[in-house]
Amino acid sequence: MTFQKSNDFNEIVRQRRSIKMYDPEVKISKEEMTEILELATKAPSSVNMQPWRFLVIESPEAKAALLPLARFNQNQVNTSAAVIAVFGDMKNFESFEDIYGKAVEEGHMPQDVKENIFKSFSGYFETISEQEMKDVVLIDGGLVSMQLMLAARAYGYDTNPIGGYEKDKIAEAFGMDKDRYVPVMLISIGKAADAGHQSVRLSVEKVAQWK
Amino acid sequence: MTFQKSNDFNEIVRQRRSIKMYDPEVKISKEEMTEILELATKAPSSVNMQPWRFLVIESPEAKAALLPLARFNQNQVNTSAAVIAVFGDMKNFESFEDIYGKAVEEGHMPQDVKENIFKSFSGYFETISEQEMKDVVLIDGGLVSMQLMLAARAYGYDTNPIGGYEKDKIAEAFGMDKDRYVPVMLISIGKAADAGHQSVRLSVEKVAQWK
Repeated sequence: MTFQKSNDFNEIVRQRRSIKMYDPEVKISKEEMTEILELATKAPSSVNMQPWRFLVIESPEAKAALLPLARFNQNQVNTSAAVIAVFGDMKNFESFEDIYGKAVEEGHMPQDVKENIFKSFSGYFETISEQEMKDVVLIDGGLVSMQLMLAARAYGYDTNPIGGYEKDKIAEAFGMDKDRYVPVMLISIGKAADAGHQSVRLSVEKVAQWK
Repeated sequence: MTFQKSNDFNEIVRQRRSIKMYDPEVKISKEEMTEILELATKAPSSVNMQPWRFLVIESPEAKAALLPLARFNQNQVNTSAAVIAVFGDMKNFESFEDIYGKAVEEGHMPQDVKENIFKSFSGYFETISEQEMKDVVLIDGGLVSMQLMLAARAYGYDTNPIGGYEKDKIAEAFGMDKDRYVPVMLISIGKAADAGHQSVRLSVEKVAQWK
């Protein structure tokens, strides 16, 4: 029911709810979705390598390809403006030049600092195990996904993070290399058609200890 | 340098930077840290099981115990108000009654819905592999960590997510069961003593495709 842009941080965080039914008439323009993703990708990441990759699944054909992989979430796929499939790129270090070259170019970093970072980390990226790299991209994928859900709210949309889908088939279904792109989650996004449910949280005393 | 509370979502997201040097005089009261964590834990999680657990490492003794495990981040440990160690609880389903019982009690959910959720998911939690459970808690750990860093900004503090520490030793160093609690990241938090560095992001065209 919410469909108002907001810049109120507290409201955005506290009123975000998982929405599983959307107004199927409401689409999100590429321009607006780009703004939402641009805001989301301000998230930090390991060595600033930004391993997140997104498929914005919105066409009837793409949704039809997604549907058999998200069988418990048919309504979300069918009624949302889009389902965003979030992946982590296992070869994210290949973006080093793109990222750090731009940092030098824009004057945020001297060339020799960039070169030192490259030297420090190229060994790390060569020797890190696949499992460790996967852990990194899942954590970074979580960071960007949270900021994406909040950014969506700022634009008046609602979302739902979906973990229950056929993760082993999603990359190939969209022509991506499944060894390179690790599935993080699906995020449905659109104009809420119901108010969702309030959910409870464990108290801070139950989840935190001071040392 | 920033030390103003803010409720401006855009500003919070866009002006968040990784800060590695803090004013060592500034502490965060338990009350305020609890508020920050309370806001952070509004994040969604798989089956709403909220697997995140936090150690707020702030005493000189606890920081001394952390220091050898975070050797590349001595300044952060020494100058921050606290370093929050984020973990994922592999046995998060043990909180089912705490969470869903409270949902029924507070009138958000009928008893039979709760029982059906329990039935649907108890099989899943029994059969899920350790690796899959670990993936889930890392992703959920990423979600809550992002919201925590934003919540910190709303309270006028800065943060830095730290992945480079001795993850295999952190649980035991603080008396926690290392098989149960999976390390996600460290987050230093405090009053910034410098302005940090601007960092660049890949353009949305490089990280997203429309389908």
